[in-house]
Amino acid sequence: MALLREMSIAGFTDELASDSAAPGGGSVAALSGALGASLVSMVCRLTIGKKGYEEYEEEVNDALLESEKLRMSLLEAIDLDAQAFGKVMEAFAAPKSTDEEKALRREAIQTAFKGACESPRRTAMYCLEVLRLCSRIADKTNTNAASDLGVAAGQALAGLEGAAMNVLINLPSIKDEEYVDERSSEMEEIQDEARILKAGVLREVSLHIG
Amino acid sequence: MALLREMSIAGFTDELASDSAAPGGGSVAALSGALGASLVSMVCRLTIGKKGYEEYEEEVNDALLESEKLRMSLLEAIDLDAQAFGKVMEAFAAPKSTDEEKALRREAIQTAFKGACESPRRTAMYCLEVLRLCSRIADKTNTNAASDLGVAAGQALAGLEGAAMNVLINLPSIKDEEYVDERSSEMEEIQDEARILKAGVLREVSLHIG
Repeated sequence: MALLREMSIAGFTDELASDSAAPGGGSVAALSGALGASLVSMVCRLTIGKKGYEEYEEEVNDALLESEKLRMSLLEAIDLDAQAFGKVMEAFAAPKSTDEEKALRREAIQTAFKGACESPRRTAMYCLEVLRLCSRIADKTNTNAASDLGVAAGQALAGLEGAAMNVLINLPSIKDEEYVDERSSEMEEIQDEARILKAGVLREVSLHIG
Repeated sequence: MALLREMSIAGFTDELASDSAAPGGGSVAALSGALGASLVSMVCRLTIGKKGYEEYEEEVNDALLESEKLRMSLLEAIDLDAQAFGKVMEAFAAPKSTDEEKALRREAIQTAFKGACESPRRTAMYCLEVLRLCSRIADKTNTNAASDLGVAAGQALAGLEGAAMNVLINLPSIKDEEYVDERSSEMEEIQDEARILKAGVLREVSLHIG
């Protein structure tokens, strides 16, 4: 299959809406984060060189470099998430006639499920970075683009929460209890941090809209 | 310019991230809603014909028809929002040498700003419909796709909140006070409803994940 990120927007939603489980919520979470990162880049570019923002120029330039890196990583994650799901399906399809095959299959399934957790986990971490960026630049960027920064924060949080659900739905299939406990509390922690960051960004944004 | 919804996902994020103000947060809000509607369609299709869900078949079929309509409307809104913003720019560029020209320009600017409110307002309403659908089918659809329905609700709420910010940022430019008051309280009301709907969907989803 062609790369999802190279498909047209309309075509990608056709694929999503179809009765195959991939691409699904994991890829959407990554795309949501990528949209957030894109808007952060736009807000930075609408600030750099503008009168009244000279003192923040260096910080906003740094933020732009970071948001562009995050945009690329999140675009890649759209495809990586669908691939990780494919590997779970592959592992289940492995032969299971002999005891040796059964043991190998069990191991492959466990490895694939961990992969299917690690992929949205990375998406969640990237989305958290997008939110931290939004928070850092909220009072240093062009107020004419305040709503764009607010939308960026909303997309990053939706991406993070969506990715976290995709981590959580795979955990019951994983037998490594330490791994399960760590991921579970990690997802709770970063969602707490992310919600606080988004609320802070929206407070700043609300000073400049309606 | 080509239709935004026909651009590749990666190419659309290039456009977003650029230093032009359109496409911006309004188009992203519409896309976020379209992603939510797509996932609702997927969850419906993963439910129809599956054992254990026979009694919900008619209701889920109806939901699928609605979500596909909403997906199309929201895909269109990606472009309509960018066009509405373009009309504001056009109105400002109108000639203003004579008193008559000035009066016409003022009127054109007011009309364009109302258009730039109506466009995200429609997006917000479509996103609300996506959330109502999520809520209606949450306990009637394939629990293996629970995280997908959760992501759908998150994208629809992010789209609605993003669209509402795009309505609000344009209101101070509009002189029709009745219009401003109505839009302002409407956006508050539907955001309240939407947040309650999302929380309900996530409660149902959480019964089936992690």
